[in-house]
Amino acid sequence: MITLYCTRNTPPFLRAEWVRDLRGLWAAEECGTPYRIHWLDASKSEQREAAYKSVNPFGTVPAMTDGAFKLFESAAIVNYICDGAGQHIPAPRTQERALYDQWCFAALNTVEPPVFQLMITVLNKDAAWAKERAPVLREQANARLAALDQMLGGRAFLLDAFSGADVLMGQVLNFIVDAALIGAHANVVAYHQRLKARPAYARALAAQAGGKNASLEAQ
Amino acid sequence: MITLYCTRNTPPFLRAEWVRDLRGLWAAEECGTPYRIHWLDASKSEQREAAYKSVNPFGTVPAMTDGAFKLFESAAIVNYICDGAGQHIPAPRTQERALYDQWCFAALNTVEPPVFQLMITVLNKDAAWAKERAPVLREQANARLAALDQMLGGRAFLLDAFSGADVLMGQVLNFIVDAALIGAHANVVAYHQRLKARPAYARALAAQAGGKNASLEAQ
Repeated sequence: MITLYCTRNTPPFLRAEWVRDLRGLWAAEECGTPYRIHWLDASKSEQREAAYKSVNPFGTVPAMTDGAFKLFESAAIVNYICDGAGQHIPAPRTQERALYDQWCFAALNTVEPPVFQLMITVLNKDAAWAKERAPVLREQANARLAALDQMLGGRAFLLDAFSGADVLMGQVLNFIVDAALIGAHANVVAYHQRLKARPAYARALAAQAGGKNASLEAQ
Repeated sequence: MITLYCTRNTPPFLRAEWVRDLRGLWAAEECGTPYRIHWLDASKSEQREAAYKSVNPFGTVPAMTDGAFKLFESAAIVNYICDGAGQHIPAPRTQERALYDQWCFAALNTVEPPVFQLMITVLNKDAAWAKERAPVLREQANARLAALDQMLGGRAFLLDAFSGADVLMGQVLNFIVDAALIGAHANVVAYHQRLKARPAYARALAAQAGGKNASLEAQ
């Protein structure tokens, strides 16, 4: 059984749906992949301690183990889970798989950067740098969302069917705290709502909230 | 034959090795994959025009076509080229492939964000926000490089052999303009030098400089 490393006791400003461990949980719930959670106590900064750094030297969350095999990077974990289940991911070496890769990287390297940095400015809204930088980041984020909106059109998902790429893009869209920013893009709003309405998303959020398997791993 | 969309006539402040079209060119040169270049004239902002947005609605560079098939996101293009050539990428659905994915996403989503944002502050060094923000970003970048340094140790490449993940990480390290920042991490410096010494890297830079295939596609 795989073990997903997730944080609990995160600081109050940090919304649960912002923490990237949600990505692996969501993929596992979509695929019906059994998992246990190894909790890292964020209030004790356990994600920065040597024990966790032996799993993920970057100290970022999440990481995953499968027996002796260690893996970090949320998107690699999503791919591993979907590939292992043979679900929600196109067959290797097909054009559809290339498009899946495209959307995974677009979520994390084209949409996330301006959207995440904008969230950081909101969290630091009294800082001079944040006030000066926010308008530029908002414009960048808006342009990326406009392009995403156009590509989504009336599509339900990024590919023809729901996939791991939607897990990543859906969680990235969670970083948007400005309702007017996302609200200007009707297809993106509908897409995000469609993803958040999935039962597996609700189960992942519940698991992340500590309701599931928390007793399986001692702290 | 694949077509790679690259920019020329980029503004003087933009170093050639910073432009992400280098990633696809480098992968193609490593794999011996024939390609033509479709040049986008950056001085005319052609990457923002409708013709290019029909290939990549985000307007980011690079994109790729293979006949009627269109693909954007540099990392997806690197995967497509390596998968197509059966070179520099582990077999699908193996632990080694999961580690390849891990390193591709680590390059673009863990190392690139602080390193790239730090570069932006250097380009805006007279702005108040840049002066205020740079120390935090430098600390984040330094922590990520320290972890990378530890993981590299005496290894030549991220995986046991050179792979597309090294193309991505190598280009990301190009964003570091502060010699002291990278200089503090000897394994990272040696790794970066090792990558830049590859003949395929030199050929990619030369191609990007407009020396190759420029006449194959009319503007």
